[in-house]
Amino acid sequence: MTQPQVTSQDHAAALIRRLEACEPDVKAFTTYDPVRIRSDAATAKTGPLTGVSVGVKDIIDMAGYVTGHGSAIYEGNYARADAACVTQLRNAGALCAGKTVTTEFAFFRPGATVNPYGPAHTPGGSSTGSAAAVAAGIVDIGLASQTAASLTRPASYCGIVGFKPSYGRYAAAGVKSLAPSFDTLGTVTRDVATAALADAVLKGPVAAPVTLAATKPERVLLCRTPHWDEADESTHNAVEKAAVLMGAHVPVTELDMRVFSDAAALHITIMSYEASQALAWEYTHKRDMLSQQITGLLEAGQKISYATYRAALEKAQALREAIAAFATPGTVMLAPAAPGEAPLLTEGTGSPIFSRLWTLLRLPTLTLPGLTGKNGLPVGVQLLAGFGADEELLNYSAWAETVLPSLPAPVLCFNKGNV
Amino acid sequence: MTQPQVTSQDHAAALIRRLEACEPDVKAFTTYDPVRIRSDAATAKTGPLTGVSVGVKDIIDMAGYVTGHGSAIYEGNYARADAACVTQLRNAGALCAGKTVTTEFAFFRPGATVNPYGPAHTPGGSSTGSAAAVAAGIVDIGLASQTAASLTRPASYCGIVGFKPSYGRYAAAGVKSLAPSFDTLGTVTRDVATAALADAVLKGPVAAPVTLAATKPERVLLCRTPHWDEADESTHNAVEKAAVLMGAHVPVTELDMRVFSDAAALHITIMSYEASQALAWEYTHKRDMLSQQITGLLEAGQKISYATYRAALEKAQALREAIAAFATPGTVMLAPAAPGEAPLLTEGTGSPIFSRLWTLLRLPTLTLPGLTGKNGLPVGVQLLAGFGADEELLNYSAWAETVLPSLPAPVLCFNKGNV
Repeated sequence: MTQPQVTSQDHAAALIRRLEACEPDVKAFTTYDPVRIRSDAATAKTGPLTGVSVGVKDIIDMAGYVTGHGSAIYEGNYARADAACVTQLRNAGALCAGKTVTTEFAFFRPGATVNPYGPAHTPGGSSTGSAAAVAAGIVDIGLASQTAASLTRPASYCGIVGFKPSYGRYAAAGVKSLAPSFDTLGTVTRDVATAALADAVLKGPVAAPVTLAATKPERVLLCRTPHWDEADESTHNAVEKAAVLMGAHVPVTELDMRVFSDAAALHITIMSYEASQALAWEYTHKRDMLSQQITGLLEAGQKISYATYRAALEKAQALREAIAAFATPGTVMLAPAAPGEAPLLTEGTGSPIFSRLWTLLRLPTLTLPGLTGKNGLPVGVQLLAGFGADEELLNYSAWAETVLPSLPAPVLCFNKGNV
Repeated sequence: MTQPQVTSQDHAAALIRRLEACEPDVKAFTTYDPVRIRSDAATAKTGPLTGVSVGVKDIIDMAGYVTGHGSAIYEGNYARADAACVTQLRNAGALCAGKTVTTEFAFFRPGATVNPYGPAHTPGGSSTGSAAAVAAGIVDIGLASQTAASLTRPASYCGIVGFKPSYGRYAAAGVKSLAPSFDTLGTVTRDVATAALADAVLKGPVAAPVTLAATKPERVLLCRTPHWDEADESTHNAVEKAAVLMGAHVPVTELDMRVFSDAAALHITIMSYEASQALAWEYTHKRDMLSQQITGLLEAGQKISYATYRAALEKAQALREAIAAFATPGTVMLAPAAPGEAPLLTEGTGSPIFSRLWTLLRLPTLTLPGLTGKNGLPVGVQLLAGFGADEELLNYSAWAETVLPSLPAPVLCFNKGNV
């Protein structure tokens, strides 16, 4: 007996079924169009991502779709071309589901998306819809980005893998900029293997072979960070439990991070200064359509002098050199991913405090799910490696994934809740 | 008697007169629209750039104008918003004339623009139209960009000042990317003072005070570069004459640059790899509308492995650290800007060899006019300083401008040829 062949139209039909089953509850998408999905499937290429579905954060261009940037200012803003990352994924065979909800200009003002693990809770921001769509099982890969904590935090809240590579690893052409010193494209997925599969496609013009091999690191460096006291018991317990579980196999030591105490403040200075330029047109011409959150950021940036900004850039560079002494080959760093479980929807998208430092340092970070907090909601932990050691980090993370427990499926899940 | 007040409509009328007088000969613009210029003038702000006119390179968005990127692929590509730099200039009072000719995607395929100093010669590329429009006296500031030699070379050929600041100094939001490790926004102007005026506006969200003060450097470091033999006698003579003229006031020593011999090759590797991602959509979907030059670049990039690219990035970083030992406070470096005078239009836009090194190193560079070559055409020289020492470089350049001779007005010039 021969195996029945799965066609690209079968992949399209399954994706549309998942969208129709889950999307009314999850509200992860700004746009999806079954007609486009089927026509894209008809011309889909064959490659390493054949059968893999993708949600595209709505600050990333997809030809023929509106790029809305989470703002009414960009209503009807149809993109002429696919962003580089969308082209790369499609050239490798992936099928794009549509555009996923982002907070306003990838900053704070949320959309309507809910957390598949607790529909009264936020999925986090700004890569809100990509994280929720992946958690709910609608798509396999969510394109996401991070300027402060926009990928790590939603991954933690939604119980999925969030991979923010080293700064600059994935091409940013066709992605709206917020603060170019930090803007980093990455992915959310349900496992490390899919993050590695996407990485092999996104790191260059031609899909590279996947080299993932689960590897035990030589040591774990526990990084409570200078902000440990801002995390609650859910995060404290998750990080300490991960340290115990990993520590059963490899030595765990703790890094005194007092020298990095300024990092979050430096991050805010640089981000504000750069955002107030990146969004200068919106502020000048469409101010009444901007939220108070974002005008607050931009006006803070306008008050910073060039000398202060330059000094912050130089201090940031010094901190990058300082961390390199610890983020050595064989080392994986373990840190909190967010201050606790997902807050209620009414409380906003959560605090970026546990990512500002790492985004400033430009290190690759992978948020790993498996642990839960006091309300039973997911609490991720961050694993980090040295700048450019992305493949090593993926290998260590694939090992750590076998050491941490697995989460149950979320309440709003195609395979569980809706079929 | 009171001075008659010059109104914004007077500025608009004068700009339109210059455009109508020169543009038929120079062909510097892809679009200009007298109606838009007058309506922009009617709502122009008052600020440090009141009365200053700007040409906007056609890879930079200007709301309501087509951004054509020098390619038929982007026909009818109306921009929704102004780029950050355009917003900053307008907020400071500047009046935008229109979009200036760029080579295809800021690479090599030229437009129809001619060199105002010799209409059979190229103005250089890729910032072709901005350089020609400034040289001809149509606009005061040309927005330009450089990924290899796209600002320095046209400035040299057109006998004007070209200021490419330190990498990242001006905001790139709304500017088409070619190779993000190198893409740098800058300006072309007729003098250093105007470059400094634009710098005070472009370096931050709010226009800063202009601090320009002509300053004699402590030393000049003559940098023939590893490519000296690829320049002809026009460039040799110009650089050596500049060294003699500056050397009458400050000590000149020579820098042995053999350690930088690989820089140009590293630049090509990184640029090809990144361009093949930045233009992935165009290559995938519109290949038949691309020139052989650009498909050659992209296909070269597709053949480079990630490991080779990463190694090139790391070597580039090491070279940046190496040059910092020489580009010290008080030092201005003097180097060739182009291999010679502007080639004939039929020969292309000239070689980028004398800028690849400096673009890789990310240093601020200012091309200064004043000298001429064997055919009487302009030959600029590059002045450079350490990373981040942009204000110092402007100050040293304002001094050097007083030491070098002045060029006569070009043949195609609003003040000379056409009135």
